[in-house]
Amino acid sequence: MLTPTEIGKRAHEVMARCRELAACTETPGSICRTFLSPPMRDCHRKIATWIEAAGGKVTIDAVGNLRGLYPAGRNQGPRLLIGSHLDSVPNAGAYDGVLGVMIAVALLENFRGQDLPFVIEVLGFSEEEGVRFGAPFIGSLALAGRLDDQLLSLRDADGISVRRAIEAFGLDPAAIPHAELSTDALAYLEFHIEQGPVLESLNFPLAAVEAIVGQTRTEFVFRGQASHAGTTPMHLRKDALAAAAEWIGAVEHAAKSDPALVATVGKVEAIPGAANVIAGEARATLDLRHKSDDIRQSTVHDLIQTAQHIAGRRGLGLQTRPLLEQPAVQMDSGLIREIDAAIRSTGCQPHRMVSGAGHDAMILAGKVPSAMIFLRTPAGISHHPSETVDVDDVAKAIECGSHLLHRLARSSQFRDRMSRA
Amino acid sequence: MLTPTEIGKRAHEVMARCRELAACTETPGSICRTFLSPPMRDCHRKIATWIEAAGGKVTIDAVGNLRGLYPAGRNQGPRLLIGSHLDSVPNAGAYDGVLGVMIAVALLENFRGQDLPFVIEVLGFSEEEGVRFGAPFIGSLALAGRLDDQLLSLRDADGISVRRAIEAFGLDPAAIPHAELSTDALAYLEFHIEQGPVLESLNFPLAAVEAIVGQTRTEFVFRGQASHAGTTPMHLRKDALAAAAEWIGAVEHAAKSDPALVATVGKVEAIPGAANVIAGEARATLDLRHKSDDIRQSTVHDLIQTAQHIAGRRGLGLQTRPLLEQPAVQMDSGLIREIDAAIRSTGCQPHRMVSGAGHDAMILAGKVPSAMIFLRTPAGISHHPSETVDVDDVAKAIECGSHLLHRLARSSQFRDRMSRA
Repeated sequence: MLTPTEIGKRAHEVMARCRELAACTETPGSICRTFLSPPMRDCHRKIATWIEAAGGKVTIDAVGNLRGLYPAGRNQGPRLLIGSHLDSVPNAGAYDGVLGVMIAVALLENFRGQDLPFVIEVLGFSEEEGVRFGAPFIGSLALAGRLDDQLLSLRDADGISVRRAIEAFGLDPAAIPHAELSTDALAYLEFHIEQGPVLESLNFPLAAVEAIVGQTRTEFVFRGQASHAGTTPMHLRKDALAAAAEWIGAVEHAAKSDPALVATVGKVEAIPGAANVIAGEARATLDLRHKSDDIRQSTVHDLIQTAQHIAGRRGLGLQTRPLLEQPAVQMDSGLIREIDAAIRSTGCQPHRMVSGAGHDAMILAGKVPSAMIFLRTPAGISHHPSETVDVDDVAKAIECGSHLLHRLARSSQFRDRMSRA
Repeated sequence: MLTPTEIGKRAHEVMARCRELAACTETPGSICRTFLSPPMRDCHRKIATWIEAAGGKVTIDAVGNLRGLYPAGRNQGPRLLIGSHLDSVPNAGAYDGVLGVMIAVALLENFRGQDLPFVIEVLGFSEEEGVRFGAPFIGSLALAGRLDDQLLSLRDADGISVRRAIEAFGLDPAAIPHAELSTDALAYLEFHIEQGPVLESLNFPLAAVEAIVGQTRTEFVFRGQASHAGTTPMHLRKDALAAAAEWIGAVEHAAKSDPALVATVGKVEAIPGAANVIAGEARATLDLRHKSDDIRQSTVHDLIQTAQHIAGRRGLGLQTRPLLEQPAVQMDSGLIREIDAAIRSTGCQPHRMVSGAGHDAMILAGKVPSAMIFLRTPAGISHHPSETVDVDDVAKAIECGSHLLHRLARSSQFRDRMSRA
């Protein structure tokens, strides 16, 4: 194992590399690096330099994922995948996604010259945020063999399809099937900033992710009667915004009844939306997440009933429109136990939590045992230029990763799987 | 007095004239006739024809108000003013404002050839809705002598000032002082659609307006912390929209505690306004009206305190910004009593109500005893193409107006005032 000083140096380097990659941007002055955009080439080039210097080999697969193979004493055989995504939202921070890839590179550098019973493959996914085509996870879906024609036909704001964007980047859509993981993939590990305030509030640097929540997104439309704010007495109103407000209160109340539940109304519109006109229509979105699909679905059902009750009592109509329905994904329990132990080896208390956001690990979990390690996120801020991470926490993550790889190399569960691979 | 058949005929004519004037519009296919717009000329011309046929004389004053003098046996002397406004909102109905002017013309036609102890002046105000310059009541403010330089300097969307618009219409801004009412003005009467559902819900065709409510308009800004809808547990949120929703509920609750109070949140915005982002800021408008300025102001004060309490409990900030503060205006009690009696003479039950909307009578009340008569508005709908009025209610209004003028001609209160004029 590395000394604390060496780990500290690597952690500083990881952060410096994240900041260096932040300069690969479509919008000078802020960070924006969407799927197959020109700055993604520079980003690939820089990362390839670091991986190759550590003895790895880098290719770009047919959807633009960076794939760095570190033979670790062998040229082929079972692969341990470690990575995250390289794309960003507009006006992003420097660490979301990129940090996980840089930690993977640092782990590979740590193991330089050592023998491991598996090949390490560093993954830098080309697309996770869904910015360019409105559909997330294009990179990891290719590895899962789930990038279908419908997805490839999506068009960006300039009318360019995914397929055409792949060609324009100099890649061959016909080779997409070769990007799919084969049976030699042992497991997928992803380090990622938490993007929330939980670890900070608990004063823990790291946590194992036990599940990625399922998500329902539904639009609620309350329909009343627009009328004059001055001439319509309260008892003769059909105020759609007042109904929506009552329901927003009920959503918050329901979510607070279960600590594992989050429910958000993030968008609301009163129509016509004038100070002196009672709203005839109010549109609001519900975003509800839970690690249990049953609880999520029954809570959404209850909140639709509550909305119907509120609308009915007020003489209003209600319409709901499902926008998204995504089941929860469990992380691999064997890997979680190993992560717990690796966190303990760093001197920290292991902690398990659910991820409230989607991640590539969610897509790969259908193909290969997957797990995630979250890093504490100062003030819970992500998707914003002020997003950051503490260098000491990055050091803990690198240390945890080193312990984890050593443990997996010795793991009996893994040995069985490696012998089958 | 006219026979019921004659009154019915006049009522049909009044409605036909309203529909004829609806064709004087800036936007073919819908009704829109703003201050000093070209179709206002046609509108003036048509009304002038009707008034002149009845023996009146029409002039257009320096702000574009139509003023039709019916000597009623005398060429000068105390004047009884009857009218309303001729401008409209965009996509308007055919009756708001115009109906009151057409009823005034019908009353003048009724009295043709009869002697009255006062001159009738029909007023068709050029501007009440505030559409073109964002400031209402330009027409009646000129009669009240309150059209100041600041108002005259306002500019429309094309950068044209009120002063320049007056000149472009062929009028002389220097003559505005001549538009002001002189001491020979006895009283102002305005027939207007209620623009609300109260009379319909009570099954009354007419009502005397006892006051025009005072109005407060205030913007409320709740400031929390935008964060990720999936990764921020409920207890660590500072959700500005949830706070605003709680407050909207409190506004509705407070307004329902006093039947004379109306309070409306008609506009709300969650910022950034995405389904998967907790709102960091929520902006909402409060429109609150009451006939008592004391009650209005203390209720607004209470609702600001409630908002502060809600924000404080949730760890949010609150900012309020006053947008409008307009005192209530009482109608003349002597005129109200005469209107009650005139309504009773038509066989209807007199009813008094407050106006929740502003009207020209509110401006003229500072200059001359003023009163209004509301006509039942089907479904309470106004400012919309489906705005209408029942022909039988128009007949009741004409009948009421005839009784009212006879009563005023005999009134001792009026006789005193006439002798001073």
